[in-house]
Amino acid sequence: MPQPPPISFSARARRTGEAPISTLIATVIANPNMISFAAGLVDPLTLPAQECLEITRVILSDPGRARAALQYDTTVGLAALRRELLAHIGRLERRPPTELGLTAEDLLVTTGSQQMLYLVSDALLDEGDIVICGDPTYFVYAGVLQSLGARVLTVPLDDQGMDVEALGALLASLDAQGLLPRVKLIYCTSYFDNPTGLTLSVPRRRRMVELARKFSREHRILILEDAAYRELYFDESGRLPSIKSFDPANEFVILTQTFSKPFAPGIKLGYTALPKDVHAAVLHLKGSHDFGSATLCQQIALEAMSSGLYAKHAEVLRVEYCRKRDLLLDALARHMPIGTTWTTPSGGLYVWVTLPNGMDSGRGSAAGVPSGGELPACPGDKLEARPHQPATTPVRLFDECIRRGVIYVPGEYCFQCERPPQNHLRLSFGQVDANQIDDGIGRLAAAIGAVVGLRPGTTKRAIPSQVPTPSVAST
Amino acid sequence: MPQPPPISFSARARRTGEAPISTLIATVIANPNMISFAAGLVDPLTLPAQECLEITRVILSDPGRARAALQYDTTVGLAALRRELLAHIGRLERRPPTELGLTAEDLLVTTGSQQMLYLVSDALLDEGDIVICGDPTYFVYAGVLQSLGARVLTVPLDDQGMDVEALGALLASLDAQGLLPRVKLIYCTSYFDNPTGLTLSVPRRRRMVELARKFSREHRILILEDAAYRELYFDESGRLPSIKSFDPANEFVILTQTFSKPFAPGIKLGYTALPKDVHAAVLHLKGSHDFGSATLCQQIALEAMSSGLYAKHAEVLRVEYCRKRDLLLDALARHMPIGTTWTTPSGGLYVWVTLPNGMDSGRGSAAGVPSGGELPACPGDKLEARPHQPATTPVRLFDECIRRGVIYVPGEYCFQCERPPQNHLRLSFGQVDANQIDDGIGRLAAAIGAVVGLRPGTTKRAIPSQVPTPSVAST
Repeated sequence: MPQPPPISFSARARRTGEAPISTLIATVIANPNMISFAAGLVDPLTLPAQECLEITRVILSDPGRARAALQYDTTVGLAALRRELLAHIGRLERRPPTELGLTAEDLLVTTGSQQMLYLVSDALLDEGDIVICGDPTYFVYAGVLQSLGARVLTVPLDDQGMDVEALGALLASLDAQGLLPRVKLIYCTSYFDNPTGLTLSVPRRRRMVELARKFSREHRILILEDAAYRELYFDESGRLPSIKSFDPANEFVILTQTFSKPFAPGIKLGYTALPKDVHAAVLHLKGSHDFGSATLCQQIALEAMSSGLYAKHAEVLRVEYCRKRDLLLDALARHMPIGTTWTTPSGGLYVWVTLPNGMDSGRGSAAGVPSGGELPACPGDKLEARPHQPATTPVRLFDECIRRGVIYVPGEYCFQCERPPQNHLRLSFGQVDANQIDDGIGRLAAAIGAVVGLRPGTTKRAIPSQVPTPSVAST
Repeated sequence: MPQPPPISFSARARRTGEAPISTLIATVIANPNMISFAAGLVDPLTLPAQECLEITRVILSDPGRARAALQYDTTVGLAALRRELLAHIGRLERRPPTELGLTAEDLLVTTGSQQMLYLVSDALLDEGDIVICGDPTYFVYAGVLQSLGARVLTVPLDDQGMDVEALGALLASLDAQGLLPRVKLIYCTSYFDNPTGLTLSVPRRRRMVELARKFSREHRILILEDAAYRELYFDESGRLPSIKSFDPANEFVILTQTFSKPFAPGIKLGYTALPKDVHAAVLHLKGSHDFGSATLCQQIALEAMSSGLYAKHAEVLRVEYCRKRDLLLDALARHMPIGTTWTTPSGGLYVWVTLPNGMDSGRGSAAGVPSGGELPACPGDKLEARPHQPATTPVRLFDECIRRGVIYVPGEYCFQCERPPQNHLRLSFGQVDANQIDDGIGRLAAAIGAVVGLRPGTTKRAIPSQVPTPSVAST
C-alpha cells in the first residue's frame, strides 16, 4: 500500500507546536533521580489524599449525591459549587461579593484555569489581535496566544510586578498608531507570578483597571487576571485585594482561580468570575468544547469547600511552601556566585534567578521561542541588571546541570521576543523534596562554577541583608 | 458611571450560539415532574455508585496511587490507562490491537469524547472547509462545526446508516467542482446513531474507508468515527467491527469512544485512536486547552477497567437499556397514530420517530437551525416517507406536550439545512424511568391527537409485524 497523502491541518494547528516544557518533563521522567526545580507540579507529600478519601466516601455513599456526581450536569458548573465559590472569593477579598458586582451566575467552572485562559482568548482574539503581557510571562499561556495567532506585546516587570506606566505608554502608542481596535486583552498573573514570583502592587492594580477603562473606546479592553497562586500566600503582604476588586460593576476584569495549586491538580478544576457578556460567550464556546467539566470532581470540590477541609488544607500548604521557599532562598544565598540575583516571592511556587551577565541558561537554538510568527525585539526588562550579551561559554549550563542531576526551566521560554535574554532561570520549590533543596542548589552552583571555570568554594556568598517582599534580591 | 463599550468578540465566538438543547434542559429543570425523553442523560438508577465508592477507596487509601491521582499527569493521558484502553478496543474488535495498526501511543484521553470531536475539528478545519455528515446528525457536533465556520454537506441515511453510495457521489461531485481540497472530514456515528438509532452496516464501513482513500489525493480525507454508544449493544447484531477496523495501517480513521455512556458521565472521559500525525497535532492543541484531563478521573477509569468492574457494569447497562428500548417500542406500537414510523435501534439510547406528513414537532422559528452561515437546501432523506409540507396545525405539538408533561427533542435540531423537515422527533430511553415510559408515550400520542383533532382512542395501532434490526419500522 503506498504512503497516504499528508494531512491538511488548519492554520491554528499549524501554529500550535509542542510546548517546550514537554521536553523538560520527558527529561525528568527519563531521570527519576534528578532534583527537579523545573516542573510547576505541587508537592506530592502535601496532596490531600486522606481528605479526598473521606470526601469521596461522603459523596458516593449517599445514593442521591452519588447519582448527581456520576451524571452529566450543566456546562456552567454545579450551582451549589458556584455559590460556595462566590462566598470563597468574598472571603479572599474580605468583602461581600455584592460589592464586587458578582453573583454565582457570573461564575463559570472549567477544566483547570488553563481551560479558561484558552476559552477567553478564543472568544476574543482573531488572528493579529493584540494581547499585552508582562515580559517574562507564563509560557503555557504564551503558547495559547501563539496557537491563536495573536500578536503579543509586552511591558517590563519590576519588584512591583507589571509596570503599569509602561502599559499606559504602550496603549497610548497603540492609540497613536490606530491599533487600539486590535487590543483585546491585558494578561496579568497578579499574585506570585509565574515565572518571576513577583506580585502586582495595590496601586498598580487600581491603575491597571483605570487604564483598561480609559482606552476602551469603541470596544472594551479586558484584563485577564490569572490568580492561580493567590491562596499560597506566606504572610499578610501577600493577601492583597484582586485587580477584580477595583472593577465593582464587573465590566473589565476576568478573575480566574484554581483548585490545582491550593488543593489538588488531580481534580483539574478552575473557576472564573466574568463580566456577563463575556460569560455568555465563553459558556457557549465551552458548550462546544465539552459541555461541562467532570461532575464528580465538582462534587469533590464542593464537599471540600463546604466541609472546611479545603480551608484547612490550603493553610497546610501555605506553611509547607513557605518553609520550602525559605530553604530555597537560604540555599541560593549560600551557594550562588557573586553577581547572581533572584526574587523573593511572598507566596506561590517560583523564584526567578538572574545569572551574571553573559551566562546562558538555555538549551540552544532548538528550544526557546517557537518558529513562525513575527516576534518583537526584546527591550530588556528591569529584572536584568545589564544589557544582554551573547553567551560565550563552550559547555551549556543546562547540559552540565543535567549531568549533575539538577534541572530548571530556562528563562528564555518565558520571553515573548525573538532574541530573549539567556541568563535567567525559573526555579520552582513546588515539587522538589524539601530535603533536596540545598543539595540541588549546590549542584546548580557547582555547574555554574564548572561552566565559567570557577574553583569549587569560590562561589559562596553572604546572605543578602535586605530582601523586601516582593522584591528583587541582589548580590 | 456610563455604560462601558461592548465586547469585540472573535469571529469564532460570534458564530457560536447557545445550543438549542440548553433551552430544553432549562424546561426540564423548571418542570421536575415532566417525563423526559429529551435528554441524552444516562439512567440515574444504573449509575455505578457502589463501584465508584470501592474504586476511590482502593485508589485513595494507597498513598502512592493517591498522590498520582491527585497530581498533574501528562497531556496525552495516563500510560497505564491507555494500555488498558488499547486492550479494551482489541476485545471489542475481537482482534489483537496490532492488527488494527494501533499501540497505546496512538491513544489520547480527553474530557469526554466531545472534547475530541472539538479538537479534531479544530486541528483540521479552517473557515469554509467541508465536513460531510449524515442528515440528520448529532446536533452538538453540528454546533461545533458552526462555531468553526465549517461548511457542512450531508448524505441521507437509510436503515443501513449513512448512504455511502451517496457519499461517493457527493465526493465525486465535489471533485468535479474542484472542491476536494476543502473536504477534510467525514463524520459518522457508526453505532446506534444519535439521533436516529441506526447502525452503519459492515459493507458500508469498509466502503467508507475505500472512499476516503480514493478521494485522498493531495491531502488525506479523514473519517471521524464517533462510537460513543458502541458498548450499549442489545444483541450480537450490534457487535460490529468498527470503521477503524478497515483501516489497518491507522491512516484514515479516528475512532473515539467514551466512558460516559457505558460507565458514568460524571468522570467525563473519552479516549480516541488517531493516525500518528493527527495524534501529534491534536495533542499539541490539547496542551493549549488544558494540558491533560482530570487525573483522578483517569485513575478511576483505570481501576474500573483493570478490576473488571467496568465490564460487569457495561453488561448491567446493556440489559437495562434493552429492557427500556423494548418498553418504548411497545408503547409506541400501542399508542402512536397510524402513519407514524420509528426506528428500531439494536443498541444505544435513541429512537427516531417520523410523524404523519404535515405535522410539526418543532418549537417555531426561534429554534432549529441557527442564523448566519450558508445552509444548503435539505434534500429530504430516506427516513421521511413523503416530501415535507409546511405545518398547518394552529397549536404546536411541542407546547401541547409540555402542557401534558412530556418532552422530546424536535428533529429539526438535527438537520443541517435551511428548512429542515418538521415531522421528526428524537426519543431517548436513557434517563426516563422505565415505569413512566408507557405513560409518557401515551401523553405524547394524546398530544398528537389533540393537535390534529383525533378523538382519544383512535390513535391506537397494532405492533408492526416486521422490525428488522437496525431498521425503520413503518406503520
